[in-house]
Amino acid sequence: MRMRNKPWADEFLAENQSIIVLNPTQHKGIWNEQFNKSQPVHLEIGTGMGGFISGMALQHPDINFVGIEKVKSVIVNTVKKVKEAGCSNIKLLNEDAVDVRDYFAESEIDQIYLNFSDPWPKTRYAKRRLTYRSFLEQYQVICKPGAYLVFKTDNQGLIEYSLSSFSKFGLTIQDVSLNLHQLNDPLNVMTEYEERFAKKGLPIYRATVQFPE
Amino acid sequence: MRMRNKPWADEFLAENQSIIVLNPTQHKGIWNEQFNKSQPVHLEIGTGMGGFISGMALQHPDINFVGIEKVKSVIVNTVKKVKEAGCSNIKLLNEDAVDVRDYFAESEIDQIYLNFSDPWPKTRYAKRRLTYRSFLEQYQVICKPGAYLVFKTDNQGLIEYSLSSFSKFGLTIQDVSLNLHQLNDPLNVMTEYEERFAKKGLPIYRATVQFPE
Repeated sequence: MRMRNKPWADEFLAENQSIIVLNPTQHKGIWNEQFNKSQPVHLEIGTGMGGFISGMALQHPDINFVGIEKVKSVIVNTVKKVKEAGCSNIKLLNEDAVDVRDYFAESEIDQIYLNFSDPWPKTRYAKRRLTYRSFLEQYQVICKPGAYLVFKTDNQGLIEYSLSSFSKFGLTIQDVSLNLHQLNDPLNVMTEYEERFAKKGLPIYRATVQFPE
Repeated sequence: MRMRNKPWADEFLAENQSIIVLNPTQHKGIWNEQFNKSQPVHLEIGTGMGGFISGMALQHPDINFVGIEKVKSVIVNTVKKVKEAGCSNIKLLNEDAVDVRDYFAESEIDQIYLNFSDPWPKTRYAKRRLTYRSFLEQYQVICKPGAYLVFKTDNQGLIEYSLSSFSKFGLTIQDVSLNLHQLNDPLNVMTEYEERFAKKGLPIYRATVQFPE
């Protein structure tokens, strides 16, 4: 999501260092020290408006959530949502997922979420998709063996591509839904984007895949 | 597909032994001897009305096609379609896919097609789905290492189940389409069922998966 620059964003982020972590490389391997409790760490890549990570954190107080969002003018919204939710089990990073190994140690992450990532529909930009092989390699290093990655999208081309990319990389497809909201899963936490999309009656795709044990 | 018994079917099949093979176990391991030319052997499981296997055989004279259809009153239609098409590179078996290892030797088959198989939507009948693990085990034995299985269905539940079943079994998902006819693939041969379904504008799903090398 490209948004206009917000000059007050730096100041806002600096004021909210209980939520946003400005020196994430320093916490590599010791993320649990940033939280009240030492418990499993789940990572959302691309936090957007923050509805998902806030909703998940409220639903799962026994999990520590870290969110990465590279667009400064977007992560401002995530921070606001997290403040509103009042959860202490969320930390946010204004960083690029391409560098994820700089911020997390091997096997530090228990689960990854990718929600409505940019589909980069043109084949020449396939390498930028967050489910491209080189990203999966990074995720595998920072995830525990057997960890799950939960992927949601409304984009048909991206789910088609990603299912194949996951499989070729050696991930096991544990579950697929081609119309998530048909399931009426009470545990599904929607993103803001997902809510708008679902209201139009359009399908949301979800794949739950597992790294090798 | 359950159809009423056709008492003349036995006679019809007996008259068409150039197409239908009444003693298939005798040809295990030597299927190419049944054809004019020794060339790769592709297997369709569930031939239905015969449109797919006939169309494929015309499009690919360099491949020998074997079709299995367990319902006698259905395979009669396949035989009629194959006769109309006038292809010499098709043989049909009125047998159950559950016994596929009785008819084919290890590594005898180069590719498998499953078209619009019965979805058996109730979980308690999952074992009857042609993409259930026990069927994949049979297919793997009769297929060459690295062989492809091409799966088409209009049933959302069956494609969701099958993608996961393929992956858990260790097959690699090489390609997925969630709306096959959007692709306008000139090589896609439609079944009769597929034509009717596509005319209504409903999506056809296709997965191309690969056995381990």
